[in-house]
Amino acid sequence: MLNQSAALDLTFQALADPARRAMVERLSKSPASVSELARPLAMSLPAVMQHLAVLESSGLVVSQKIGRVRTCRIEPKAISLAEQWINARRGEWERRLDRLGDYLEELKAKGDEDGSGG
Amino acid sequence: MLNQSAALDLTFQALADPARRAMVERLSKSPASVSELARPLAMSLPAVMQHLAVLESSGLVVSQKIGRVRTCRIEPKAISLAEQWINARRGEWERRLDRLGDYLEELKAKGDEDGSGG
Repeated sequence: MLNQSAALDLTFQALADPARRAMVERLSKSPASVSELARPLAMSLPAVMQHLAVLESSGLVVSQKIGRVRTCRIEPKAISLAEQWINARRGEWERRLDRLGDYLEELKAKGDEDGSGG
Repeated sequence: MLNQSAALDLTFQALADPARRAMVERLSKSPASVSELARPLAMSLPAVMQHLAVLESSGLVVSQKIGRVRTCRIEPKAISLAEQWINARRGEWERRLDRLGDYLEELKAKGDEDGSGG
């Protein structure tokens, strides 16, 4: 079992490639065989298999071979971890901007008071 | 100007490293100087500068040197792009699961009907 930081390394690394993102986009719609994944990509089947291996080792995708067909599907847990990490950052800077906004409002209110008093 | 796919490559690549994620986590709380960024990280200042360069070229972080101090801050646009990409995928597979759920409900309702009829 990977720790959370190592899992995020692998997930973000896996998503840092347009072909792998295209494969995740495809699999988000429905499970697909390796040849279905390869069809819209301008690359050889071995290249697709290599990208698939990266996606599987990150945990983003799982595949199962039944007979001669390997079917791939998305595994939502890994991408959720990445999503949570990004959401947490956004939460932090939004709270910071809110605090800054409150401070500017206070300054403005104080300025209005001073203005009406003088 | 980078196209969206190239921007996502750089953003996910930048986030695929624990030291760079730690820097983004720190900067999500407030802007910081390079030495403040370096303090909690067990690495040399040149190594921190190198990670900062990766973060800046991805657009996740901007920095400005005033006098002798370089101050870094988060730039929310790049991370929003990554967030949107992930959210879009989640939207797709959630809709798929909803459709699957509807189908199972239909099957169940049909089964109940058949059961009560027989």
